[in-house]
Amino acid sequence: MTRKLYLEDLKTGDVFKSGEYALDADEIKAFAERYDPQPFHLDEEAARDTFFQGLAASGWHTSAITMRLFVGSVPLAGGIIGAGSDVSWAQPTRPGDVLRVESTILDIKPSRSKPDRGIVTLQSDTLNQRGELCQRAVSKVLAFRRE
Amino acid sequence: MTRKLYLEDLKTGDVFKSGEYALDADEIKAFAERYDPQPFHLDEEAARDTFFQGLAASGWHTSAITMRLFVGSVPLAGGIIGAGSDVSWAQPTRPGDVLRVESTILDIKPSRSKPDRGIVTLQSDTLNQRGELCQRAVSKVLAFRRE
Repeated sequence: MTRKLYLEDLKTGDVFKSGEYALDADEIKAFAERYDPQPFHLDEEAARDTFFQGLAASGWHTSAITMRLFVGSVPLAGGIIGAGSDVSWAQPTRPGDVLRVESTILDIKPSRSKPDRGIVTLQSDTLNQRGELCQRAVSKVLAFRRE
Repeated sequence: MTRKLYLEDLKTGDVFKSGEYALDADEIKAFAERYDPQPFHLDEEAARDTFFQGLAASGWHTSAITMRLFVGSVPLAGGIIGAGSDVSWAQPTRPGDVLRVESTILDIKPSRSKPDRGIVTLQSDTLNQRGELCQRAVSKVLAFRRE
């Protein structure tokens, strides 16, 4: 098991690299049916003449996969508890993509009101198998001090 | 069928109200198993002594449900195509919550390079059955002009 990280273990510039996640058309459609039922996320044929020119995952599906990879690669003590995230989608993810996430600590702010914790700002880049940026998320998460 | 909206139909201050979405523990756990496998999203018992003090949905699950409600309530011609979203979670969503989304247009910017479209900034507030804010998302989406 990976050693858990506390606030005092972290420093600006630290990088965390995730494992990989293979995305297929069935998963793209299943997510979209429930959460983003639009033609370009649901059906190859219907997607062809849209903005995306072919089946593309919902951006929120890319975000969810990113969280999966983030949880597996940033071992914060107490878990990943996010206050928010500024997400941008550079390009959609597609059937057959193999995604990975690189997360870099941009900033660490100890809490003034709660001395046992701080807010860590990380940039998480979601890359496909060609190393192309699909999503960038700048997120604020809690980190706790050792007792 | 709702009339589809084009760029010239939209104005700052326009408000769109969604239908409702009922969230239960099974769906919270199913989403978390796949995309955010942490104890406070997976198991009532394990969640009790965590930050959340009980089972809570992943923030990204709340975002996905918000997209579902947004797609059903903001009938843009060409569909909802997002460039990005700045999301913050005011409080978690929980089993038994009934969620709805109110979206307000904050800004409309015609594209300089592509005269057939513009970028619309909307604030989407996700509220529970007590009217409490659970998530605020400020998103940029494409809107197209009539041919």
